[in-house]
Amino acid sequence: MTSNAPRNAWYPLTWSRNVTRSLARHRLLGGDLVAYRSEAGVPVALDDMCPHRLAPLSMGKLKGDAVECGYHGMTFAPNGRCVRIPGQSMIPANARVPSYPLHEKMGLVWIWPGDPDRADPSLIYDLPQYNDPGWHAAHGDALRIEANYLNLADNLCDPAHVSFVHLSTLGNAASEEIPVEHTFSDSGVLVWRWIKDALPIPLFAKYGNFRGNVDRWHYYDYAAPCSAVIDFGSADAHVIKNPEDRGQGLRIFACHFITPVDEHVCIDHWLHVRNFAIDDADVDQRLHADFRIAFNEDKEILERIEAMERARPNAKRIRIGIDAAPQRMRRIVERMAAGDAAAPAA
Amino acid sequence: MTSNAPRNAWYPLTWSRNVTRSLARHRLLGGDLVAYRSEAGVPVALDDMCPHRLAPLSMGKLKGDAVECGYHGMTFAPNGRCVRIPGQSMIPANARVPSYPLHEKMGLVWIWPGDPDRADPSLIYDLPQYNDPGWHAAHGDALRIEANYLNLADNLCDPAHVSFVHLSTLGNAASEEIPVEHTFSDSGVLVWRWIKDALPIPLFAKYGNFRGNVDRWHYYDYAAPCSAVIDFGSADAHVIKNPEDRGQGLRIFACHFITPVDEHVCIDHWLHVRNFAIDDADVDQRLHADFRIAFNEDKEILERIEAMERARPNAKRIRIGIDAAPQRMRRIVERMAAGDAAAPAA
Amino acid sequence: MTSNAPRNAWYPLTWSRNVTRSLARHRLLGGDLVAYRSEAGVPVALDDMCPHRLAPLSMGKLKGDAVECGYHGMTFAPNGRCVRIPGQSMIPANARVPSYPLHEKMGLVWIWPGDPDRADPSLIYDLPQYNDPGWHAAHGDALRIEANYLNLADNLCDPAHVSFVHLSTLGNAASEEIPVEHTFSDSGVLVWRWIKDALPIPLFAKYGNFRGNVDRWHYYDYAAPCSAVIDFGSADAHVIKNPEDRGQGLRIFACHFITPVDEHVCIDHWLHVRNFAIDDADVDQRLHADFRIAFNEDKEILERIEAMERARPNAKRIRIGIDAAPQRMRRIVERMAAGDAAAPAA
Repeated sequence: MTSNAPRNAWYPLTWSRNVTRSLARHRLLGGDLVAYRSEAGVPVALDDMCPHRLAPLSMGKLKGDAVECGYHGMTFAPNGRCVRIPGQSMIPANARVPSYPLHEKMGLVWIWPGDPDRADPSLIYDLPQYNDPGWHAAHGDALRIEANYLNLADNLCDPAHVSFVHLSTLGNAASEEIPVEHTFSDSGVLVWRWIKDALPIPLFAKYGNFRGNVDRWHYYDYAAPCSAVIDFGSADAHVIKNPEDRGQGLRIFACHFITPVDEHVCIDHWLHVRNFAIDDADVDQRLHADFRIAFNEDKEILERIEAMERARPNAKRIRIGIDAAPQRMRRIVERMAAGDAAAPAA
Repeated sequence: MTSNAPRNAWYPLTWSRNVTRSLARHRLLGGDLVAYRSEAGVPVALDDMCPHRLAPLSMGKLKGDAVECGYHGMTFAPNGRCVRIPGQSMIPANARVPSYPLHEKMGLVWIWPGDPDRADPSLIYDLPQYNDPGWHAAHGDALRIEANYLNLADNLCDPAHVSFVHLSTLGNAASEEIPVEHTFSDSGVLVWRWIKDALPIPLFAKYGNFRGNVDRWHYYDYAAPCSAVIDFGSADAHVIKNPEDRGQGLRIFACHFITPVDEHVCIDHWLHVRNFAIDDADVDQRLHADFRIAFNEDKEILERIEAMERARPNAKRIRIGIDAAPQRMRRIVERMAAGDAAAPAA
Repeated sequence: MTSNAPRNAWYPLTWSRNVTRSLARHRLLGGDLVAYRSEAGVPVALDDMCPHRLAPLSMGKLKGDAVECGYHGMTFAPNGRCVRIPGQSMIPANARVPSYPLHEKMGLVWIWPGDPDRADPSLIYDLPQYNDPGWHAAHGDALRIEANYLNLADNLCDPAHVSFVHLSTLGNAASEEIPVEHTFSDSGVLVWRWIKDALPIPLFAKYGNFRGNVDRWHYYDYAAPCSAVIDFGSADAHVIKNPEDRGQGLRIFACHFITPVDEHVCIDHWLHVRNFAIDDADVDQRLHADFRIAFNEDKEILERIEAMERARPNAKRIRIGIDAAPQRMRRIVERMAAGDAAAPAA
């Protein structure tokens, strides 16, 4: 693994439903992993390289809970230790592959590529509404974006772009000139703005039975390095007196859990949790159709920016007011990565 | 822009008809430009990169004469200055993008990527016959060639290759052994040869009502760095006593205006001007069909040479007699590029 | 030619049937060659680059026994010397291209890229049965593998992989735990094992009329740098008392002659020679269908290993018992390449 992303962090590896009794290859932080589920149902992730001749273990066979290499039959247990070398009885002590801590939450398998002793599942982003019976959660897509994951994170600390990028779904011109507010912590940033007494955005106009103008909000809650949950919604204008009461309106948490595939590719595992139409699966599909439009608009821009950064590695950027949160986000991630260097994994 | 081509020179950017009220991306000297036409019809070319997050401006919108970035709405005037930043009133002094001098001539938009103060349109190649009512001009194609533009320029200072490369159109075996003549200036080379009392070449045999053998000529007029006009034609053998009287025969100016896209790609914008069948549009098409065959023969060879140069960067070349003009051409271009270095653009 | 393969060695260039009166390009050791057959039928191979402008000679024309460049007509004889420059009488002494020693054997044209004085055809692998009327030889395919040729050579010094890779054709589980034996020489390795009193492998079960279990053998005879002949077969269990008498059973020589195309690609020219069904061309096709399955299984693994080696150039390997022969193979090739350096070709 060669990415400069922090190693001591949880990352989404893939949807839980993709980890099965078949060997599957996944790519994270520039490295390849083979993942599968043990006979007891426990997910396992090993480095996808046999240390003998470097064949990918994912080309091999699952034998019980172990993986047999497809070239010469060397076999590795879930903890990475070699348990068989055909044709010889002695197994060298160094015949092992890295094995990684995993944890399942919100329909995803999360992986900790750093020091296993620090792999505390309570560090994974927690959204209580995900399991709340008064809310409904619906999984979306794994959207591959040919961009560094931090360029996507920029976008997810940035309510301002919505007014220009997502005019058919999430934004409209009413918000163009409204500045953003933010608070910072050691591990993330929260950025928001309210657009008051304005036309509803196209997405909500379909579901709210609004009498006229609405007050609407976007809260972008980013937790380093790879989680961002956008709390957004609308209510009839002037009804919500206190921002903390915004649950009285139509409210959606659009969740983005980013897999850094390598320096130039990431996967946005997105899903949403909402407080309306909670028994209506058809609304899942209609909302997801809109999200697909919006997130593909982001994808297109981010991929063009990535290409520009590669073509012009020394390009100078000018900074404007809305950049405060993305800049803070990058400093938080840099500090996390520096922490890895100070205490490298075994 | 990273090419080693001279910056203080006019280059064809694209056909005039391609510069419209829609934003379009063009590539020149390894850099990307966004071009459009103002409401008054004036062509504009800006660097195609928003200096905020590096999004291509060509993904944005044309708002009057200005370009609005598609990511956060920063807006740039034709002179490159930022005129709007949504959500804030202060516009930093460095919020601007490079804007380039343009000039339209012979159906092309020409661009000067160097010092704007030196952008004198009278330096663009001038072919008086282009607008002469006794002649007819017809635009051809924009032929993309995966080769450095100087390898194409070599080809356009070189009548000798016609005898081997273009046997079905522009040449025949009669000229194989005829040496070339040349004169050099500070800004270009002129290379020519006459093939006397020989069979007509396939292209002219279709249009001239020749009684038998012809005298025919090729004059290759190259003007550094990117213009080459080939004056070629035929007349019944022994009729033309003085080369300056060759306008009495069938005569074509095949014009090649080269766009250096980057180090390894160029575009040959070609057209022709002729003194026969000047009201016959069908002849345009028939001649262009032949030119397409011929110029694609050049393209194939030049792309194979480019591939060889990349595979064998240290290959040694032997020099023969016909190389004098191409060698001189390269020295002229090197001197122009050195002039850029001595007086860099702002 | 930039490969690190030994230069003073014979390599298969292509099947003899591919060298004709048409110019054809072939790639060897990272360089390109143009090959053809003279009017008298003698194969010729020249460097595929005109030393004037670097055009590939294979784009030119065959004129008698010489090659005319397609750009300006420079013409080269089979010994590489320039014999014509159109438009001038003087031919520079350095106007020549490298010409290589060739030799035809076993239906292949072999090439010696090193010092011509050391090109002794008796050094080419000799399999007496190829021309023996009691045996039958059948040419297979030229299998392109995107892997360094030494990774294929590893595979051809390695009977053990058969138990895991080729279960539908050449192997079965009975051999998994049987160790390999070997002898080494200065120029190659011989690796073998016998699997006694076991089920026939799928391939032989179709042709042998076995009553029950068989004794079967694999002898891998590798001759550096590019030849490997696998002598394998089966006989009813306990019938063959002495390994040297294995010709009494069904016996096949599977021959692999490897062309190192460049550092990352090789071509496996494979054929077989057998002692049964020698007049039955249908058996050629049925055996080759099985060989295609098996060799494509190797190709897939070798290409995945090649990709892994490129992704992880510093990966550490663990060594196990079956690696003795491949390791020796690599030392032999390294010593040959070092010998080139000590006495470089002219």
